[in-house]
Amino acid sequence: MQNYLKNVKFDENGLIPAIIHDLKGNVLMLGYMNDESLKKTIETGRVHFWSRSRKKLWLKGESSGHFQEVKEIFLDCDGDTLLIQINQNVASCHEGYYSCFWRKLKNENWEISEKKIFDPQKVYK
Amino acid sequence: MQNYLKNVKFDENGLIPAIIHDLKGNVLMLGYMNDESLKKTIETGRVHFWSRSRKKLWLKGESSGHFQEVKEIFLDCDGDTLLIQINQNVASCHEGYYSCFWRKLKNENWEISEKKIFDPQKVYK
Repeated sequence: MQNYLKNVKFDENGLIPAIIHDLKGNVLMLGYMNDESLKKTIETGRVHFWSRSRKKLWLKGESSGHFQEVKEIFLDCDGDTLLIQINQNVASCHEGYYSCFWRKLKNENWEISEKKIFDPQKVYK
Repeated sequence: MQNYLKNVKFDENGLIPAIIHDLKGNVLMLGYMNDESLKKTIETGRVHFWSRSRKKLWLKGESSGHFQEVKEIFLDCDGDTLLIQINQNVASCHEGYYSCFWRKLKNENWEISEKKIFDPQKVYK
C-alpha cells in the first residue's frame, strides 16, 4: 500500500471528495476519487476521478482535452477531503464555463455569473 | 419550499457538500448541509452545517467564536455541490490552523505546510 493512503479516509463507497482549485485561487469543481484514481493522479500528474454515474476511472479532460495538471495535493485535518491545486487547460465545466460554479444565489434564485469560454457542441462531438 | 431549493440536489442522506472559500482565494474546509442548514446559512449570513458525527445542526464557530460570514453562495453545474465565499473569523480548523488543508503531499507523505494561529486548548475548554 502507498504510504500516503494510511491517512486518507475513503467513505463507505471507497470514495473521497476532491476539491479542484487553481493557482489563482478559483475553485473549479468537486469530484470523487477512489484509491486507484488518487494513485493515477499522483503518478501521472493529471487529475483522475472516479465517475459515479459511469462507474469507471475518469481522466478529467479525456474527451475534451481539458486536462488538469497537478501542482499540489492537500489533505484536510479529518483525512476525509482532498484539495488539489492545478493548472486548468481551457476550462473545467462541460457546459463551457471555466468553473463549474457559474450560478450565484441572488434573491432566492440562481443567476448565471460567468461567461462561457468554449462551445460544448464543438468540443464534445 | 424556498425557490432556490428546486435546483439543489441533496444526496440519499439529504446532504450536499459545501466548499468554504475565503475572499482571498483560500479553500478552508468542506462541510455538509441539509436543507435546514442551508436555509439558516442564507437567513443568518453565518455558515451552518449538518454535523454528520453529532447528527445535529451545527453553527460553525458556535463553541470557538470562529464564525464564517457569508459573502456569496454558488451552485455547480450538476446542482450537487455548493461553494460558499466567506470572511473567516480567526481560523476554520479546530486544530489551530487557518485552513483545514494544512497537510501537503511530499514524497508519499503528508507534511505540515501551515503554522498554527491559535491554541486549541485555550479556545475549546
